[in-house]
Amino acid sequence: MNAPVHPIEHLQVELSDLDWVTDAGRIARLSQDFSWFSPVLKRQLEGKQAQAVVRPRSQDEIVRLVSLCARLRVPVTVRGSGTGNYGQAVPLQGGVVLDMSGYNAFLWARDGVARAQAGIRLSELESAIRPLGWELRCVPSTWRSATLGGLYGGGFGGIGSINYGPLAARGNVLGIKAITFEAQPQVVELRGSDALQLHHMWGTNGLVLEVEVGLAPAHDWVEQLVVFDSFDAGLDFGDAVSRSTGIVKRELCFLAAPIPDYLRQLADHLPAGCHACIVAVAPASEPALQEVVAQFGGKVTCRKTAEEVRTSNRTLLEYTWNHTTLHALKVDMTLTYLQIAFTPGQHLEQVRRMEAFFAGEVLTHTEFIRNIDGHMVCTALQLVRFTSEERLREIMRLYRENGIRVNDPHVFIVEDGRAQGSLAPGALAMKRRFDPLGLLNPGKVRAWMDGVPA
Amino acid sequence: MNAPVHPIEHLQVELSDLDWVTDAGRIARLSQDFSWFSPVLKRQLEGKQAQAVVRPRSQDEIVRLVSLCARLRVPVTVRGSGTGNYGQAVPLQGGVVLDMSGYNAFLWARDGVARAQAGIRLSELESAIRPLGWELRCVPSTWRSATLGGLYGGGFGGIGSINYGPLAARGNVLGIKAITFEAQPQVVELRGSDALQLHHMWGTNGLVLEVEVGLAPAHDWVEQLVVFDSFDAGLDFGDAVSRSTGIVKRELCFLAAPIPDYLRQLADHLPAGCHACIVAVAPASEPALQEVVAQFGGKVTCRKTAEEVRTSNRTLLEYTWNHTTLHALKVDMTLTYLQIAFTPGQHLEQVRRMEAFFAGEVLTHTEFIRNIDGHMVCTALQLVRFTSEERLREIMRLYRENGIRVNDPHVFIVEDGRAQGSLAPGALAMKRRFDPLGLLNPGKVRAWMDGVPA
Repeated sequence: MNAPVHPIEHLQVELSDLDWVTDAGRIARLSQDFSWFSPVLKRQLEGKQAQAVVRPRSQDEIVRLVSLCARLRVPVTVRGSGTGNYGQAVPLQGGVVLDMSGYNAFLWARDGVARAQAGIRLSELESAIRPLGWELRCVPSTWRSATLGGLYGGGFGGIGSINYGPLAARGNVLGIKAITFEAQPQVVELRGSDALQLHHMWGTNGLVLEVEVGLAPAHDWVEQLVVFDSFDAGLDFGDAVSRSTGIVKRELCFLAAPIPDYLRQLADHLPAGCHACIVAVAPASEPALQEVVAQFGGKVTCRKTAEEVRTSNRTLLEYTWNHTTLHALKVDMTLTYLQIAFTPGQHLEQVRRMEAFFAGEVLTHTEFIRNIDGHMVCTALQLVRFTSEERLREIMRLYRENGIRVNDPHVFIVEDGRAQGSLAPGALAMKRRFDPLGLLNPGKVRAWMDGVPA
Repeated sequence: MNAPVHPIEHLQVELSDLDWVTDAGRIARLSQDFSWFSPVLKRQLEGKQAQAVVRPRSQDEIVRLVSLCARLRVPVTVRGSGTGNYGQAVPLQGGVVLDMSGYNAFLWARDGVARAQAGIRLSELESAIRPLGWELRCVPSTWRSATLGGLYGGGFGGIGSINYGPLAARGNVLGIKAITFEAQPQVVELRGSDALQLHHMWGTNGLVLEVEVGLAPAHDWVEQLVVFDSFDAGLDFGDAVSRSTGIVKRELCFLAAPIPDYLRQLADHLPAGCHACIVAVAPASEPALQEVVAQFGGKVTCRKTAEEVRTSNRTLLEYTWNHTTLHALKVDMTLTYLQIAFTPGQHLEQVRRMEAFFAGEVLTHTEFIRNIDGHMVCTALQLVRFTSEERLREIMRLYRENGIRVNDPHVFIVEDGRAQGSLAPGALAMKRRFDPLGLLNPGKVRAWMDGVPA
């Protein structure tokens, strides 16, 4: 009688035709994401890694993998390109990391809707739909490498959310195809609101195979970097542009001093100590934008047409959202960041108040968006001069005490981040339906930390 | 020695190659607009008419006409298709009505911008740009006949303002060409903010030859008529759709009972006593819209695809904005209307409060738009059961006393309507520059009622 075979070995033998990553270094890398932005997560997730990584290329491969993992009770953590910041893709309990990047076919686009397999890169999806006159409604600054499934499973929105709100706003996601994690996997299509029940759940309550999204009409966006002498001028410029319904835009962020000093690659365009806005507008809106620039005493120090962006493959948009954070951390690893949602109508006052409150310790980076309720507002990805985990928690507590919502990015439990403490009943119901064995990305959801709730 | 020639005769002799309207009935008709919506304006403007109407076909003809009118001191009132509601096109002091409908060339469209001569019908302009993938950002419900110059000179916005706000929002109008009214007319291009100084001034402070506007990406709008059992369900549906950033829309209005009963041509789709919303959404947004319909217990009783609208040449959009008013007045000439601007954030409460306040006397018709400050709000074109001019004034006073802005549509003085009492200095400066002799549409602006102010 042979010794019992280790489940991972069993998987790799029985599914030997699948694309298994065997190099230890690659397994370690594919067990990581961008959670190192957080010193807390970096400490907590250190050394967590999969026992194996597999990169399926077809639904059949995924079905066979899921079936066998279910039978062998092997935990599976799904990843796209690993651009998430919350440790979504880090396996807490070993097992298999399912790298979806090989399951990446563009399926179709028509009538302002596109559908693709979860592992498609957002940049590939944009390349497929742009010749048809469409673009994605909202993408993270990581769209070059980030996947559609990753955006769906762990993302918020980003560039474009100034028009369409977050991805979670009704109508942005039309449907998904997901597979139940059991010995006899079921492939299920979820439509409309149901299709949002697996969104931003980090692959904990269902394994998503395909995503269908509403599109936006494509524009030849012109990117501009606008600098200001004062904080208020830059913020007020952002506010004015955000509220100008006749200025067609895709991105608008405000980077208060000293953040622009960290953007070394743009140093030629950023006078030391300046405040800056990055804005992408439609060509027709450039003259109106220029009027607002002049009104607030700004100066355009860099301008890139869509053609220039295409040709150079360099875009100012890769200095927005969490790319700002990335560039700053490359310069100063003692920095970390926050995620703050201001209150519509009070947001400018809140930004100014907190800028003063944490002067020099929390550096203001706001992104203008429409929120899930349709209000124009700004959200923020402030940089923080990190001193201790205790102080970081205190900073977030002080925001909350000031009546400002914090989406804590220093936690790896779904409920402790954007979900603000508890999950929707629908999300829990999906968990029971799609992961009856509790094997999907275990340890990330408090509600079933000790198994699936009844 | 001959008797002195009457200036009008002088004009017609010296400019005999121009297209003069000589039929008395046509002159009377071309001296009118849709100000008969208001019993006050109907009484005040009765019998006002031009001594002659001329329909120029070229800039040269306009220049020669203006020059001679300036020399002869003949007042000129410019009209497009006469779909305005404030008597904009009614000549108070006789003279010449300048019918711009023959000066109607489409000039160009590129990069999301189009330019045309002022007399072009909005429907013709849309036909020219739609094959290029664009449509107009905001149009009145009268777009089939209304002209671009008329929209600019006397309009607000309308269908599409839910995305782009009013025409006056920065960036919607990029430039205009106007001509000074003097013996040696100067043709002047105004750009950006300057190009708005002649907007909504009813042709009193400059004669506009060409208008250049920012465009919107075209969608194949699907029109739906949704009916509700209760006022609150219909209003709340409208609010929910207005705030759904993922539902791409062009029009959204709420017609409270008994207004739908007046829409006789839609009677098959409107149960007696119902409340109704008319909404135009992008095809990709239909499933999400349907979810909101279900959420508020609505029922879609009529649905028209863009193709069906094109083929039938019938559109639900011709039951929105002031077409609602028109249809109702055709059924009941004792009705008139209001124009009310609610306060963002308080607008639903204000609508409900005033519906109760004037129960049965003022009938609620709201249009969801983004206002000039970028806020989602609803404005209203309520129907009023008219009893007396005194009561009509009292109703408007009561709205104001309730903290709600009234854009009085029962006045023919620019300052007394949307301008809320006084004109911007820029508009007055334009008057001095473009109409030094005070001959353009005289009697409509209080600031120079007795001639051009110094």
